[in-house]
Amino acid sequence: MTDQIEITLPPYSRGFHLITNEIVSQLDALPETGILHVFIKHTSAGLAINENADPSVLHDFNSTFDRLVKENEPWYTHTMEGSDDMPAHIKSVLTDSSVSIPITGHQLNLGTWQGIYLCEFRNHGGSRKIVVTITS
Amino acid sequence: MTDQIEITLPPYSRGFHLITNEIVSQLDALPETGILHVFIKHTSAGLAINENADPSVLHDFNSTFDRLVKENEPWYTHTMEGSDDMPAHIKSVLTDSSVSIPITGHQLNLGTWQGIYLCEFRNHGGSRKIVVTITS
Amino acid sequence: MTDQIEITLPPYSRGFHLITNEIVSQLDALPETGILHVFIKHTSAGLAINENADPSVLHDFNSTFDRLVKENEPWYTHTMEGSDDMPAHIKSVLTDSSVSIPITGHQLNLGTWQGIYLCEFRNHGGSRKIVVTITS
Repeated sequence: MTDQIEITLPPYSRGFHLITNEIVSQLDALPETGILHVFIKHTSAGLAINENADPSVLHDFNSTFDRLVKENEPWYTHTMEGSDDMPAHIKSVLTDSSVSIPITGHQLNLGTWQGIYLCEFRNHGGSRKIVVTITS
Repeated sequence: MTDQIEITLPPYSRGFHLITNEIVSQLDALPETGILHVFIKHTSAGLAINENADPSVLHDFNSTFDRLVKENEPWYTHTMEGSDDMPAHIKSVLTDSSVSIPITGHQLNLGTWQGIYLCEFRNHGGSRKIVVTITS
Repeated sequence: MTDQIEITLPPYSRGFHLITNEIVSQLDALPETGILHVFIKHTSAGLAINENADPSVLHDFNSTFDRLVKENEPWYTHTMEGSDDMPAHIKSVLTDSSVSIPITGHQLNLGTWQGIYLCEFRNHGGSRKIVVTITS
């Protein structure tokens, strides 16, 4: 049995953002046991699961990713769409195009400190589409 | 219901390569709704999902990964299989051993610009095996 | 059909560790075809799939990750939980919160050289909880 919805997220600023509630609030009752799969339909933003409590973590993710994959590197050849574009593609592969979370007892079985991140790597990425699929 | 095939890819040169068609062309009819899971049975090549249109993106992925994880670092101890081997293991973890994509209306629900990448990190990786599993 | 167990791993030292047997030994008979999904309920440790034979690979993963994401970077603001904490969050996103592996003929369809890694990024991470879900 598979259940699926597509969610259009509002535009987020460049950086890492918690979207767990945005997703959970749009789900019907979850099955007893299964997997929740979240997929982002874009190549310059990513998904990840990490710390859900302290905004300083989100901040440090952003500044560290900006240093891991810098803008305007002399070896970039894909430069027509702005200096934030090619780094955004690479960062989205370093994070992920999908995350998947076990469902246990009709609930997401996340750890106490885990939340779902939207990782927006463009300066003006606009609204992003994600597909949520529940397999049981 | 689960459906599965194993595909042997032809050898690819070191770098990032689009293999969406190579996979899709070998699939039977897809279910109405589900997940397509692609797994690579190797530890020095990876999978990713990213930009499917401009070859300069594939080129820049390769040159950036070669700088993120360099060959011949003085701290490497696993050096018997060539200078491209240990970096290939690390790069394959930075990309992924599997990608999974929602199926919607009997089709892969990829974004307009998304394709599946084989990330070949060895100089002479040879042919690679992937396992494609469809869950619905 | 979905089957699920939660496993509490013993504490591991900081570094990369093979846990394939730890997982497989706790599974009942696997279905003919399906997906095994392993999820870690923590934000400062990760999962990955890589080389299962040579301990030097595990060693080099650790020293390379320690250089990719250093402790005590001047831009970190999340510093209250120790110098190993913020790098651990970032490394756990560079690896993964889950891995998934095809099941074929009632067995895990891993490549010859593939094993499942627990990537422990804290100095004293303690025991870690993982959730194993089998979808078929």
